[in-house]
Amino acid sequence: MGEQVSVSLLGLGVVGSGVVKLIENHQEELAHRLGCSVQVKSILVRDIEKVRDVSIDQTLLTTDPNDILQDPEVDVVVEVMGGIKESFQHILDAFSAKKHVVTANKDLVALHGPELQQAADKNHCDFYYEASVAGGIPILRGITDGLSSDRIQQVMGIVNGTTNYILTKMNNEGVSYENALKEAQELGFAESDPTADVEGLDAARKMAILGRLAFSTDIELSEVEVAGIKNLDLEDLKYGERLGYTMKLIGFASCENGQVEVNVQPTLLSKDHPLADVKNEYNAVYVYGEAVGETMFYGPGAGSLPTATAVVSDLVTVIKNMKLGVSGHSAVKPRFKKELKTADKRLGQYYIRLHVKDEVGAFSTISSLFNTFNISFKRILQTPVKKHEVAEIILVTHQTSLETFNHSLHDLKNLDVVMEVKSYYKVEGDVEREMAGVTKTL
Amino acid sequence: MGEQVSVSLLGLGVVGSGVVKLIENHQEELAHRLGCSVQVKSILVRDIEKVRDVSIDQTLLTTDPNDILQDPEVDVVVEVMGGIKESFQHILDAFSAKKHVVTANKDLVALHGPELQQAADKNHCDFYYEASVAGGIPILRGITDGLSSDRIQQVMGIVNGTTNYILTKMNNEGVSYENALKEAQELGFAESDPTADVEGLDAARKMAILGRLAFSTDIELSEVEVAGIKNLDLEDLKYGERLGYTMKLIGFASCENGQVEVNVQPTLLSKDHPLADVKNEYNAVYVYGEAVGETMFYGPGAGSLPTATAVVSDLVTVIKNMKLGVSGHSAVKPRFKKELKTADKRLGQYYIRLHVKDEVGAFSTISSLFNTFNISFKRILQTPVKKHEVAEIILVTHQTSLETFNHSLHDLKNLDVVMEVKSYYKVEGDVEREMAGVTKTL
Repeated sequence: MGEQVSVSLLGLGVVGSGVVKLIENHQEELAHRLGCSVQVKSILVRDIEKVRDVSIDQTLLTTDPNDILQDPEVDVVVEVMGGIKESFQHILDAFSAKKHVVTANKDLVALHGPELQQAADKNHCDFYYEASVAGGIPILRGITDGLSSDRIQQVMGIVNGTTNYILTKMNNEGVSYENALKEAQELGFAESDPTADVEGLDAARKMAILGRLAFSTDIELSEVEVAGIKNLDLEDLKYGERLGYTMKLIGFASCENGQVEVNVQPTLLSKDHPLADVKNEYNAVYVYGEAVGETMFYGPGAGSLPTATAVVSDLVTVIKNMKLGVSGHSAVKPRFKKELKTADKRLGQYYIRLHVKDEVGAFSTISSLFNTFNISFKRILQTPVKKHEVAEIILVTHQTSLETFNHSLHDLKNLDVVMEVKSYYKVEGDVEREMAGVTKTL
Repeated sequence: MGEQVSVSLLGLGVVGSGVVKLIENHQEELAHRLGCSVQVKSILVRDIEKVRDVSIDQTLLTTDPNDILQDPEVDVVVEVMGGIKESFQHILDAFSAKKHVVTANKDLVALHGPELQQAADKNHCDFYYEASVAGGIPILRGITDGLSSDRIQQVMGIVNGTTNYILTKMNNEGVSYENALKEAQELGFAESDPTADVEGLDAARKMAILGRLAFSTDIELSEVEVAGIKNLDLEDLKYGERLGYTMKLIGFASCENGQVEVNVQPTLLSKDHPLADVKNEYNAVYVYGEAVGETMFYGPGAGSLPTATAVVSDLVTVIKNMKLGVSGHSAVKPRFKKELKTADKRLGQYYIRLHVKDEVGAFSTISSLFNTFNISFKRILQTPVKKHEVAEIILVTHQTSLETFNHSLHDLKNLDVVMEVKSYYKVEGDVEREMAGVTKTL
């Protein structure tokens, strides 16, 4: 390695174009920071002739991955092509050829991160993937370096911009899910096929990655429970609003004594919680550390240039390590084998909306049932329903275990006075607060 | 350096005790992360007999700094004693003895950071000071590593917990400055002598440090303009509220083409701005990067354990560097000599509250005056005042230069119809919004 470091890209889409622009525009700063220049040596594309919105020297483009992976002059490979199978193999090949790798590919890191890290370690190569979680927010460094001395107990993330945009519209403007999705698609915040986003899978990938780094343990993508936002009813958002909550798709990860829980689900978040103010397409990750307490990292979760800053910041780290001769030392091996928390250990508060027969003693029957499960209520709201002889009751429980809650829900459905359990959601970030017109405790 | 790294502390106050606790409690994690154990070897105190709230082996304590600074077995010195003169000399002595230094001392780093960095570089030592800005928030790493590929254009910080607590009380509960301060003192969020906090000097120190790292240039503490919150009038907070702003003590730093501006002043912040939701004693730093756009880092700005996490995270980095043999390479030298922005280049919006004679043509006279300065209004609010023949007018300008604003203010005071300019504040984070009862544009 001389006075110039050669970087090659696999892919030249939205993120790849941003990376090329950033490297070109920030040559002077990069040279100052690194003491050498950074050159884009070659770029793998599917179609060389395609018209692109970044002006690029056509001679850099190739359709043959071996032009990059077998080029001894290439020091670092930036994988921004997405997908799983091909990119997985390319990165393994890059490591075999002793090239360092930076990737923005969350799907791949969520599925195969640990294997790729092993391959990197074996070849004394660096492997960084800051851009794979929450775009421009330097959250992985925040966890691995900034809070490296602390014991992280909880991570909560709004890590999918599409769903956060949709929920912001639904919360603030009372727009239906369908219309909010349509608007997000028109503005480019949602893909034409939004399945991975609205069903929570995209967020689950990021939570698997965050959980691994935060708790220093292995977490498989398949171990992340997922629920999406497709079936949300505006009614519940409105009741949430009245009770002091805002509906968010929350990625939740917690760790106590090696017992881990990671999931993604629509959650009613107290408006006092720092994440509650994260609006539109923005992302944020809330980290609770035993010593530091509450911290939050906020910023753009996607977009060409924001994501590219994360890629190029990783690149800066990789090049620094090369110059210092310390490549391949960054990763911290998982510290312990985790156990997944069983339902009896997963504590939480819950919101439940019921339709009950509007008759004497109905509420008493319901509250007795919860009483037998030792579940008490934090908030109760009863409102008339247009239909005759039906009352709508909203309950917010105090903390209980998921197991107990599920049992109570089962028995609730069998009660004669309960016509329908309309919905139930997890509640997070709640604190004692006075609210007009709401009975706080039973 | 063997299988154990020896760390000594200068000082055992609030932060020092937290550092000792954290190192003791997290031995297992530190050993996993570093591959070696971390031992507290000695601690400089003023009074060995003093009763402390951390249980400590008395034999570690010494009142002679040379027991630490001249002990060849001490690898890293953690300076948490505060003050300037003594700690400055101790750190220089530590570097001379080839010891790495981690400090939480914002006063010292703000005043002598560049000299200390030079001494560290000269001796191939590491010098880290994450804890000096915003306690537990890993913001210095966020700027120097996480956003290392970007060109940072603006940093805005709520970097003083005391004043943010006081302002939150004043904003949300209409409590007077004096009572809010008293409450903050009772809760331990304000010192018995709160001068450095309420006059903005503490925030100025942190902004000088942030500005240097964000813009990669030299910034002297004396170049940071400072205004505090002591003379705030609740009236202005109430008007701010009506107009969609919240009053915050904002540290502001911006850089355009090597032209820099750094100041601390009470600022009316749009409620849409991410910093507007930062409440009570919490801190947050908002960073605007050319490529990444808006990011924010939020967390506890003070406290024993939160600040200690920053110190120990720095310690982890220092020890990693020692093990890798790359100590003394972390600092990035200032990239350019800055110029301070002159008043004609400092653009901003302003809030002005006036008492004017309640007579025909008064408003027209005032608006003509602003018109001659080419200053237009974003919001205008006129309310009756109890005194007869006086009208109170609140104006929020569109963007103008500080120079032009100052001229207009001078001329305004000389207008016959203007009885008094009651107050004026900078406005930040404003965007076009519909507000009931407020004329938006003249």
